[in-house]
Amino acid sequence: MAQNYAPKTQHMIAEMNNTAVTREEQTLVLTQTERTACQETVLIEQPVEVALNEILIGTTMVMPADLDALAVGFLFGQGYLSAAEEVVEVLTCPEGRMTVYARVEDPPRDRSREMIVTSGCGGSGRISRDMLQEQEAALHECSLGFADIRGLIKGTLQVSDLSLRTHCVHACGFWSEGELKVCCEDVGRHNAVDKVIGTLLLEGIPPRGAVYTTGRLTSDIVLKCARIGIPILVSRTAPSSLGVDIARQTGVTLAGYARPNRLNCFNRPERIR
Amino acid sequence: MAQNYAPKTQHMIAEMNNTAVTREEQTLVLTQTERTACQETVLIEQPVEVALNEILIGTTMVMPADLDALAVGFLFGQGYLSAAEEVVEVLTCPEGRMTVYARVEDPPRDRSREMIVTSGCGGSGRISRDMLQEQEAALHECSLGFADIRGLIKGTLQVSDLSLRTHCVHACGFWSEGELKVCCEDVGRHNAVDKVIGTLLLEGIPPRGAVYTTGRLTSDIVLKCARIGIPILVSRTAPSSLGVDIARQTGVTLAGYARPNRLNCFNRPERIR
Repeated sequence: MAQNYAPKTQHMIAEMNNTAVTREEQTLVLTQTERTACQETVLIEQPVEVALNEILIGTTMVMPADLDALAVGFLFGQGYLSAAEEVVEVLTCPEGRMTVYARVEDPPRDRSREMIVTSGCGGSGRISRDMLQEQEAALHECSLGFADIRGLIKGTLQVSDLSLRTHCVHACGFWSEGELKVCCEDVGRHNAVDKVIGTLLLEGIPPRGAVYTTGRLTSDIVLKCARIGIPILVSRTAPSSLGVDIARQTGVTLAGYARPNRLNCFNRPERIR
Repeated sequence: MAQNYAPKTQHMIAEMNNTAVTREEQTLVLTQTERTACQETVLIEQPVEVALNEILIGTTMVMPADLDALAVGFLFGQGYLSAAEEVVEVLTCPEGRMTVYARVEDPPRDRSREMIVTSGCGGSGRISRDMLQEQEAALHECSLGFADIRGLIKGTLQVSDLSLRTHCVHACGFWSEGELKVCCEDVGRHNAVDKVIGTLLLEGIPPRGAVYTTGRLTSDIVLKCARIGIPILVSRTAPSSLGVDIARQTGVTLAGYARPNRLNCFNRPERIR
């Protein structure tokens, strides 16, 4: 407990502990006329279990730095801990488990407390661990040109003015056969993607197309798009390391930092003409 | 199922169903020299239960639009549904429950599947429902001037270059007694706040100060800061409706759209001098 946490950068601390928090990826920057090799730094996202008195409370996807603080804050935030004095010891295991020993009643093993998955996060910001190993996504095939990409991005961003008015929504659009077929918004980026996938399922729209999201491409977002068979995934912003890994496992085309005339492809650029 | 989901704005659809997705809030824009009344539009965030064959799977915080698509996408994303053909009917109850009837095995009532709380979301992006009613936060008292606000914002953003390098992290800083005491980053905005709260607890730092986050001020973020007694909460971006409600219940000073010389106060501006 005696470590000094006062402002020091997270990756400085992590690097002192020989834990990398980023890795380098070779990518291809695409424009209508050029393809340029480029190196991008991606943030490491990895699963870490949190246990209280050796009872597993949950597994969370994290950047692997400051894990003892995270474990205590996580348990406090969920109501398992209520004061610092309860904490006896925090142990970090290099395989990705944090255990907090605390003078509190042991948490119920059946987890029957009604938990709310919060927004901003939202929706299925939860996946089952076995899904992380999923490799057999049957992707629908298609390729898109820059006119499609432009239509997808501009269409999604222009569908509503909620983002401009509230600065509190994520948008997600689905493009296929030359048009924006679905566009949804929500307080959580997970929810917005869930709404698009739910609409494809409910309306029987074939997933042979591309998804654009204003949110980051973390593990669960890439995974759920791959599961339904969407071959192309485009984001306004960055993927995480695990997002890139899952795209490679499943064969999804993954593009970040997308603008109407430029995107940065992390996997399978051949689907973008 | 026969509704046409093709691009229509979410709030157009919601408003057709007489469900508001935004509300207006009176706020006070503060600068070093002026206080100007201002109206802001905030996004509605509310809890909605998702049930499969009448078994409750979870409660998620959402923007109340397109809930049938959300329910199906949520269950698909968590692996409870695997194809559209399984869905028989989706019912929405105005009190905030979505029930999907589907030809699938009933989900286990003990929820023993190991679920992962995903990042970007991350950390304690989960709260127990009873915490939403929490009113008795014992806040530590303090007030800050604009020199402190500037120090907090600039300090937090300058602590590391991970955000610039990866575009994939949220940062959270804690300011007290004229200095930045803690600063953490993570792939998830919930995780970054959890790391700061965990550090305060582990290091015995009194929460008499202000938190700055680069993420939105949704329900759980405001709630966990109030629970530990932090009186001032500042964000680079927007609060949700439920974030504002919880700030009012607990008495937290809530400021959004914060820049070094300007912020927009949604509750209890008197703590900012």
